[in-house]
Amino acid sequence: MATARLISYEEASPEVRQVFDDIRRTRKTDFINNMWLALANDPELLRRTWAEVKAIMGQESAIDPLTKEMIYIAVSATNACGYCVHSHTAAARAKGMTDEQHGELLAIIALAAKTNQLASALAVPVDAAFDRQ
Amino acid sequence: MATARLISYEEASPEVRQVFDDIRRTRKTDFINNMWLALANDPELLRRTWAEVKAIMGQESAIDPLTKEMIYIAVSATNACGYCVHSHTAAARAKGMTDEQHGELLAIIALAAKTNQLASALAVPVDAAFDRQ
Amino acid sequence: MATARLISYEEASPEVRQVFDDIRRTRKTDFINNMWLALANDPELLRRTWAEVKAIMGQESAIDPLTKEMIYIAVSATNACGYCVHSHTAAARAKGMTDEQHGELLAIIALAAKTNQLASALAVPVDAAFDRQ
Amino acid sequence: MATARLISYEEASPEVRQVFDDIRRTRKTDFINNMWLALANDPELLRRTWAEVKAIMGQESAIDPLTKEMIYIAVSATNACGYCVHSHTAAARAKGMTDEQHGELLAIIALAAKTNQLASALAVPVDAAFDRQ
Amino acid sequence: MATARLISYEEASPEVRQVFDDIRRTRKTDFINNMWLALANDPELLRRTWAEVKAIMGQESAIDPLTKEMIYIAVSATNACGYCVHSHTAAARAKGMTDEQHGELLAIIALAAKTNQLASALAVPVDAAFDRQ
Amino acid sequence: MATARLISYEEASPEVRQVFDDIRRTRKTDFINNMWLALANDPELLRRTWAEVKAIMGQESAIDPLTKEMIYIAVSATNACGYCVHSHTAAARAKGMTDEQHGELLAIIALAAKTNQLASALAVPVDAAFDRQ
Repeated sequence: MATARLISYEEASPEVRQVFDDIRRTRKTDFINNMWLALANDPELLRRTWAEVKAIMGQESAIDPLTKEMIYIAVSATNACGYCVHSHTAAARAKGMTDEQHGELLAIIALAAKTNQLASALAVPVDAAFDRQ
Repeated sequence: MATARLISYEEASPEVRQVFDDIRRTRKTDFINNMWLALANDPELLRRTWAEVKAIMGQESAIDPLTKEMIYIAVSATNACGYCVHSHTAAARAKGMTDEQHGELLAIIALAAKTNQLASALAVPVDAAFDRQ
Repeated sequence: MATARLISYEEASPEVRQVFDDIRRTRKTDFINNMWLALANDPELLRRTWAEVKAIMGQESAIDPLTKEMIYIAVSATNACGYCVHSHTAAARAKGMTDEQHGELLAIIALAAKTNQLASALAVPVDAAFDRQ
Repeated sequence: MATARLISYEEASPEVRQVFDDIRRTRKTDFINNMWLALANDPELLRRTWAEVKAIMGQESAIDPLTKEMIYIAVSATNACGYCVHSHTAAARAKGMTDEQHGELLAIIALAAKTNQLASALAVPVDAAFDRQ
Repeated sequence: MATARLISYEEASPEVRQVFDDIRRTRKTDFINNMWLALANDPELLRRTWAEVKAIMGQESAIDPLTKEMIYIAVSATNACGYCVHSHTAAARAKGMTDEQHGELLAIIALAAKTNQLASALAVPVDAAFDRQ
Repeated sequence: MATARLISYEEASPEVRQVFDDIRRTRKTDFINNMWLALANDPELLRRTWAEVKAIMGQESAIDPLTKEMIYIAVSATNACGYCVHSHTAAARAKGMTDEQHGELLAIIALAAKTNQLASALAVPVDAAFDRQ
């Protein structure tokens, strides 16, 4: 099921193929996952989204690539995005996440959700010490 | 505003003080943030929650302490928990998070939220390649 | 802060006052909380919302009044609705919620949030035994 | 999978059939989607929910029908409600949503989710200029 | 689909089997649902999660067992956790939830979500009367 | 309260001022709201976020400017982002949203949240008719 057709490489316009080619080149694999095939319905949205993913997730930077994927999983699980949880767990594993790290990541995500709820239900006022303004 | 009173160290029962003392000892500071003062209304909930936070966030393990805090921030921002965002951003900074890392963390959280929405609105089917079952 | 003005009884139109009067009569108090003063900007929305709250929360039915309020708090905390958490915790207390019950309610809400996250992050397939279709 | 049986027109009670008939009449089609078949387990909930959908989504009013559906999709995607995203995307298309509008809707939803997260993670204080109270 | 393998009793380690045995004993059934088979990838996370579920959901306490399950459903539906909605609706039914109670539970959850949204969109300021601090 | 300092125009770097200047020019006002002052802590994140907001919200396109703001409000209320609800309600009003439209927008957002919950709690299976794949 999906709310838009998946557009394969074969039927894609030159504009879309350009993005698909860059995805393949960047990831060093012919496999293009369904997210991009679905976004291909709007070439401009596809182009901008891929450019952002490539810039933020791919570049050398202050947070290492595996940590980036774990943060991505944390947000995706909280938003109950099944697709994203699957794709970024696969990405994290490809970048070296061990079973032990996966288990720990789950424990942190679960603990955070738990204390988020406690703080919300208790409406705990923010300590002045935490203010940066 | 809060839905329960904040219970200070002075008025706390011996059972609650025991947890407060452990928080102070573990964190090497006299400061006890409001979350714990609010949880003190239910000594058993306070005891269990602190035990879990201490075990998961404090221990030497497969994910380093700063990464743990950044994952915690990611979940808390997604759950719109203002209190938790404040307390764990302060904790991350105390553990060495730089301004550059904070900016990058925000960028990843924002990107994940964005693609979560796209995947949900498009109802993208999960690729067989991502299945571990 | 608010995105709409709070409309007091004094400045309210006859149509709005009719609802305000019914709220006072039903709850046996002159106090009208801010939610209704804000909804008064759209008399029809005010009227329909109050009618629904009155019908579902007030009537004798298969779930007792206190349990209803606790379920309301559970949803409100999960949606991070500070206003609703405050108003329904007050309502639950007015209907007899003890400190012990409040503590237990918090523990259940927090546990549910935790296992929700675990199930989402693991993308656990639903057991056939749970299907009612 | 479902947590309640889907009740077909054939096995429905007269009370339920009355709602089903009105859905068919109003929408000018024999097709009744699963949501209503599931709600039919509680005839009163079915009746009230349909009455509200009909009143708010169907009537001539200050917001045009297509815009209403796009707002509905925005909320549903944010709540990760797969069923609702599917049904209201179909409804929006039936009301004339073009591929271009769908792409733009997705872009706005995604951008909003992104800046929501940034504002939450930064805990940006509300500007006095935005207050209406 | 799942992001981790389901580990059956047969292939489980002694440490995991100990938890599985306790689940069977406590619930008086051989059936172990997928959640636990998935958590078995991290024996420590499995052990702690089960211990918490057993302590909070199973014990004699200030909130009765059926109410606990209904609160669990409320949180799970709000978090859009399909798995949890299924498993806890089954649990609630096993503990005696009638069709009428299920219908009412749904009505309360839906009403709460609705007024949560209204309060958030209107940014209604919390009444001083609701403050417990 | 905030988790990062608000950086005023006066203390901003040339790189940040360039964005601030463009915001002022584009919006034809000297006022720069706090969101941008907070994002200024990471000039690159500020630059990219503003570029995206300008491109998607400002351009002539298939969805009119007021509808765009109403969609933005819908997502923001669902994510319980108080800041965003305030800023985009102000923006919608500046673009001509009437009180009647605001009331209707609220009614749609609330109805969508309600039926989202019902569909999630009932785990309604998606009708084949809604599939576009």
